[in-house]
Amino acid sequence: MLNHPELVREATRDRVLASMAALGYVRNEAARHLRSGSTRTLAMIVLDAWNPFFADVARGVEDIAVAQGWTVLLANSHRSTEREALYLREFAERRVAGLLVSPHADLAASLQALRRGGIESVLLDARASDPEGLSVSVDDVEGGRLAASHLLGLGHREIAFGGDPATVSHVRDRLEGVRVALRDAGLPGDVSVLPAPDLTVEGGAEVGRQILGLPQSRRPTALFAASDLVAMGALHELVRAGWKVPEDISIVGYDDNAFAEHVLIPLTTVRQPAYEMGRVATEMLLGRLEGRPITPNHLIFQPELVVRESTRVLDQ
Amino acid sequence: MLNHPELVREATRDRVLASMAALGYVRNEAARHLRSGSTRTLAMIVLDAWNPFFADVARGVEDIAVAQGWTVLLANSHRSTEREALYLREFAERRVAGLLVSPHADLAASLQALRRGGIESVLLDARASDPEGLSVSVDDVEGGRLAASHLLGLGHREIAFGGDPATVSHVRDRLEGVRVALRDAGLPGDVSVLPAPDLTVEGGAEVGRQILGLPQSRRPTALFAASDLVAMGALHELVRAGWKVPEDISIVGYDDNAFAEHVLIPLTTVRQPAYEMGRVATEMLLGRLEGRPITPNHLIFQPELVVRESTRVLDQ
Repeated sequence: MLNHPELVREATRDRVLASMAALGYVRNEAARHLRSGSTRTLAMIVLDAWNPFFADVARGVEDIAVAQGWTVLLANSHRSTEREALYLREFAERRVAGLLVSPHADLAASLQALRRGGIESVLLDARASDPEGLSVSVDDVEGGRLAASHLLGLGHREIAFGGDPATVSHVRDRLEGVRVALRDAGLPGDVSVLPAPDLTVEGGAEVGRQILGLPQSRRPTALFAASDLVAMGALHELVRAGWKVPEDISIVGYDDNAFAEHVLIPLTTVRQPAYEMGRVATEMLLGRLEGRPITPNHLIFQPELVVRESTRVLDQ
Repeated sequence: MLNHPELVREATRDRVLASMAALGYVRNEAARHLRSGSTRTLAMIVLDAWNPFFADVARGVEDIAVAQGWTVLLANSHRSTEREALYLREFAERRVAGLLVSPHADLAASLQALRRGGIESVLLDARASDPEGLSVSVDDVEGGRLAASHLLGLGHREIAFGGDPATVSHVRDRLEGVRVALRDAGLPGDVSVLPAPDLTVEGGAEVGRQILGLPQSRRPTALFAASDLVAMGALHELVRAGWKVPEDISIVGYDDNAFAEHVLIPLTTVRQPAYEMGRVATEMLLGRLEGRPITPNHLIFQPELVVRESTRVLDQ
């Protein structure tokens, strides 16, 4: 693809870059743009941009950012530590002004380094361990407790949890909430965990197949799925096998994503204020970029139970 | 936010940038990264990243790009000509190697200019007017014809179209397909158009309310919605008002997005091969970046009818 003049120009370029590096020069397009009044850029790195939960978060981010004249670039880490690091480096090199990250790895050291280099950041859907950092998260233990308390109140005792606590801390926290609810109700025993490989519809189908594979005596009367997508996948698999929901099994999801009320059986679920989280995170980040003090700098939203048609009182 | 050393460093930077500009120097991070074997970046600008159709397209793009060591940055034009131009300029300035764009405006001139500047591009879900350009699209007239022929075959004659042909060419083409089907069947009359402000669930709710507002004598027996999200929104509004689907009205969607089979009444729809479109578009783009001849350079996919539970034979 390179012809001779191109090679010559690239050699010149390399010399300029080398001398710039020697001078300790760091290109800063963002600052230049800020001064010229043209593009001002934020970047967002999410675990899975195609999960409707992150779509809602991102909508909130964009609504605030765009209204204030910022552009937003998005990247998908796909829950890969390597890709996450790659995008962090890429956005740092491209000198975006600020980053919004739903982290996979522990990014405290990386984000502190970026901050020293003039790039501010806010963690989305996770608590920053850096006391100076910014973060917006949801109390997932409380969310799990809400889901389980609802099911316990309907008389369910054989509750299965659809999700793998080994994957992400959110899943661990939601499961912990179930255990809190059991303890609060003075109930013995433990919840049975049916691991979903990830929080997707396909992961939920896997949970559904695990339920279908259990002997009659060990079948749960209720499923708390670690996300709405998992609930949808499990629901679909069970209905295809002839089960009726909620008659044969009650199902609770998590997120209240844009599709939860449109599903075959509209989902009872735990609502995370995804859109508001995106808005608030962006306001915090832009506030810090403008040098305003941000208090509190770690914001924790409370989830809410939304009761629809996928849960009902257990038949005696 | 700027302190004195920062201002000094920025002044140096401006002088370096000015001298670089005087030399005709253009920063080319992509080329540098290609040589160093580190980051290689594609960018994707879509009309609405939060529509599951584009999520499927983007999944295809990422699967190919990531496997070949590329990163992908995403931006959302929100069907705004201004934002689209802003992101095009931003990615050009940031020297990404290639662009994938689902266009809002006619971008032929802009993309030709970028190409002369060494940035290749491919249009997603649209036909490039530039004969040298690359594009991947779907035959939407055929898609509309498939939907309408299915409904005509079930005996429906009062067919409404949910979508606004004034918004995007895809909607116009799908409506044109309905007219083709009516002509092919030798039927007189025209389809009644119920405009949705956009191809979202909220747009579909608006279509549902329009149907509910019609006098009994003018109610359609079938609705062809210009997207699955529109179908979902209309379905939800009608069911909430006590209608039964498909008993009271048959509904056909468009896309076969990831949620179409999980909806309250699993949707009969026209499948667009979104994931494959993303894969093929990326292969074409990477091929051109590697200097390979791409034939054909305008690829048109054929849609398919997927029959589920939201349509049935009209009661006589």
